Amino acid sequence: MTIPDKTRRLLRSVPEEAIFHGTDPEDPRFGDLLTPIDEIPASASIVAVIVGIPQHIGVERNGGRPGAEEAPRAIRMAFTKLATSAVERAIKSERLVVCDAGDIDTNGKTLEQIHDEQHDVVSSLLHAGCIPILLGGGHDTAWPTIRAMNYVGEPFGVINIDAHADVRPLIDDVRSHSGSPFRQMLTEPSSALAPASFLEFGLQQTSVSRSHLDLIAHYGMHAIMLDHIRERGVRTAWDDALMMATQTASKLYVSLDMDAVSSAYAPGVSAPAAAGFTPEEVLHCVRAAATHRALCAFDIVEVNPRYDVDGRTAKLAGLVLAEVIAGLADRLGPS
Amino acid sequence: MTIPDKTRRLLRSVPEEAIFHGTDPEDPRFGDLLTPIDEIPASASIVAVIVGIPQHIGVERNGGRPGAEEAPRAIRMAFTKLATSAVERAIKSERLVVCDAGDIDTNGKTLEQIHDEQHDVVSSLLHAGCIPILLGGGHDTAWPTIRAMNYVGEPFGVINIDAHADVRPLIDDVRSHSGSPFRQMLTEPSSALAPASFLEFGLQQTSVSRSHLDLIAHYGMHAIMLDHIRERGVRTAWDDALMMATQTASKLYVSLDMDAVSSAYAPGVSAPAAAGFTPEEVLHCVRAAATHRALCAFDIVEVNPRYDVDGRTAKLAGLVLAEVIAGLADRLGPS
Amino acid sequence: MTIPDKTRRLLRSVPEEAIFHGTDPEDPRFGDLLTPIDEIPASASIVAVIVGIPQHIGVERNGGRPGAEEAPRAIRMAFTKLATSAVERAIKSERLVVCDAGDIDTNGKTLEQIHDEQHDVVSSLLHAGCIPILLGGGHDTAWPTIRAMNYVGEPFGVINIDAHADVRPLIDDVRSHSGSPFRQMLTEPSSALAPASFLEFGLQQTSVSRSHLDLIAHYGMHAIMLDHIRERGVRTAWDDALMMATQTASKLYVSLDMDAVSSAYAPGVSAPAAAGFTPEEVLHCVRAAATHRALCAFDIVEVNPRYDVDGRTAKLAGLVLAEVIAGLADRLGPS
Repeated sequence: MTIPDKTRRLLRSVPEEAIFHGTDPEDPRFGDLLTPIDEIPASASIVAVIVGIPQHIGVERNGGRPGAEEAPRAIRMAFTKLATSAVERAIKSERLVVCDAGDIDTNGKTLEQIHDEQHDVVSSLLHAGCIPILLGGGHDTAWPTIRAMNYVGEPFGVINIDAHADVRPLIDDVRSHSGSPFRQMLTEPSSALAPASFLEFGLQQTSVSRSHLDLIAHYGMHAIMLDHIRERGVRTAWDDALMMATQTASKLYVSLDMDAVSSAYAPGVSAPAAAGFTPEEVLHCVRAAATHRALCAFDIVEVNPRYDVDGRTAKLAGLVLAEVIAGLADRLGPS
Repeated sequence: MTIPDKTRRLLRSVPEEAIFHGTDPEDPRFGDLLTPIDEIPASASIVAVIVGIPQHIGVERNGGRPGAEEAPRAIRMAFTKLATSAVERAIKSERLVVCDAGDIDTNGKTLEQIHDEQHDVVSSLLHAGCIPILLGGGHDTAWPTIRAMNYVGEPFGVINIDAHADVRPLIDDVRSHSGSPFRQMLTEPSSALAPASFLEFGLQQTSVSRSHLDLIAHYGMHAIMLDHIRERGVRTAWDDALMMATQTASKLYVSLDMDAVSSAYAPGVSAPAAAGFTPEEVLHCVRAAATHRALCAFDIVEVNPRYDVDGRTAKLAGLVLAEVIAGLADRLGPS
Repeated sequence: MTIPDKTRRLLRSVPEEAIFHGTDPEDPRFGDLLTPIDEIPASASIVAVIVGIPQHIGVERNGGRPGAEEAPRAIRMAFTKLATSAVERAIKSERLVVCDAGDIDTNGKTLEQIHDEQHDVVSSLLHAGCIPILLGGGHDTAWPTIRAMNYVGEPFGVINIDAHADVRPLIDDVRSHSGSPFRQMLTEPSSALAPASFLEFGLQQTSVSRSHLDLIAHYGMHAIMLDHIRERGVRTAWDDALMMATQTASKLYVSLDMDAVSSAYAPGVSAPAAAGFTPEEVLHCVRAAATHRALCAFDIVEVNPRYDVDGRTAKLAGLVLAEVIAGLADRLGPS
């Protein structure tokens, strides 16, 4: 697998001090097990590529509180500090490769320009057979990823783990924002989104309007409400969600809006939710998703370090990434 | 249903900026669906009336930390911002009506004067067939509501969701405070409280004394301890509690002390508890209670915005109100 | 039971204002029910002795953030404020006695000197048949307790409730620190630790290295990972853990590292964990352990009041102590 030069030019590699490195060879951290993007070994079965999109223009357009542009940096530091017991063998065998491709250069660009560059990067990674792991940014980050899935053209399913539906109309019918990505997806004329394969997972009745629920139903898609999930049990509900999203789709994109998690655990988000998932629930879901062969793109969005408490939310985001990597390692079987 | 002028004069309507209004007709918020207190349509089957009691005199008398007087304002803002998907149809059909009657004017008054006015307001609302939803204030807020239930005279049950029993003696045998309302209720000579129909739900062994538990048992009432609830499961324990409280009573009053919820989720309370309910547990309980035909009065007390973290507790209180309204809508059947 | 003068000289009794005293005889608090260390009645079946070790030298050696030296004071205040409904009868009958022996005098001492004094104190308490309840300090606090168990010589089991394994090598092969106590225990040549009787309970895959897990397995011991515990249910997993730790051991020492609890509930620790146990889970575990006849020593470590939020973590630590005392009372049967 190789990443075209054109794609790499869109990315700004992160400074060395943004990555944690351990000092004890007995205790390697994720920061120690990253492979440079241009040294991916031929032996690799699975290549996960982390890409940051440091911006919150879409959040501001949506009337939210800014800060998400600092998320990629905070998540990266938290992630690279984590111990690697679950994946060390898979990574050292070079069958699983994790790269950090750096950030999309968002400096001085419009949201539309950033989205176009993200589309190019994600398309290129998908074409190369890599699994992009995107660090937002606001939830508008989902839209260029969906466009890239459309561009690749294979039927795909989408699960959005979120308190909100994010199917609001565009501003002035043209400007996307952090509340609009799935409206854009549903109304996209020539989409590869498979029928009945989009699920919103964890919506809260007090965070979504009746007409937005009706809109999702109108397109034959599914809004799985948090209270129904709690009644059935998160694990059962998630198994069903994965099955539904991949029934007629060979590819799956999972987006995690951190505000799906209760603000006790995730205070550092754009729009904190008093109720929501626990860390264990979300970690279980992302691991099960990553273990599934269909998962080909993942993002974590709406982390807002300006409102974080002692790095709690960034650490949870780091755990999410680690669990995604662990799920990818699970695909390879026992090592 | 009409509210007498005399009652309305006791209330101070809230300023317009204290209520959130949405801007998108596709996404109405609770602030958009409130009915003015003097415009209740004749078609209404259920009328919920929100009344704030901004004071913490009883908390101070009990040695607690002040701040609860700011709760009605904070809860109202959080509540009116919430989306209305669960109740939009019931409210738009004018079968369910939600009014915000404003606050009891507590300025410069003694606790006894405030309690008397609250008693008059709640009695009047109960007589009119409305369901008062009271925003404390300290837990002494429960006492005038109980007096109003006595005044109305129908046999009633009470469930107090709380970490504490609040059956302390009065100060100098006469002055009530935030720790005394249920002692006052139990020892009231001519009470309409039905036998065995008072339940304390969620008491913690480290928050209640042996003699207070003995006192509750002495009156034939029930202390349901948090650890027993956890062993049985909250949903089962709550179903039983609702049944017990309404076995010989046609009316039910539920009081929610926010410190029943773990301080991770509810840091902004007078007396935070390190252990306790999760938001989901409490939201389930209040919704099931509101769905029950017997529920005729509800309050939420002891929220203390001065100790809140990024509005987390006020938001949870807002969710509680929304869930009560959703439970009332459930009574009307599918719309 | 008497505590030798030599032992008492190693302890510095706490000032009167460090203990909370209630004012209502109907509502005694733990601070009201403490027995002075030299007044233990002959009738006592179970004597729990609280000892603080106010230091964080081991945390600093391990690169952690200082503050744990303030933990004994904060935990003591939180604990002594708690109501005593679960244990009042057992304590008033003088069958269960709770003493607060004060703190080990750590002023101006090296970690090695403090550890030696703690070893002497704990050995002496164990010999006298008391149950030491130790308030760390960093997790290095576990090592002198283990040495004391070795010194007493009866086969013992150990359960460490923790996110981390704490089996790191010593610094320069000689200096112990907050990450090394269980490595020291495993490699101790003449240990009374029973075969297969050491369990790490709640380890997180992102907090422990592969080689440390291998080390634990190499010694025939058990690492019970948090995600496996969640799959099986905490209560079942804990019952099994208690059984395994006491299968060939008549004595049990349980160590609780507060960072086993999610940082939403326990923000005030040296190394906060975004995921982890809930208060209810940990309280259930310590109570079940204390009810078990084998439990002869307990500690709570790594509380760090400098990072606490409104005393949340200290309060939880107080609840843990209260639950341990309640478990000891359970041993006496219904009173």
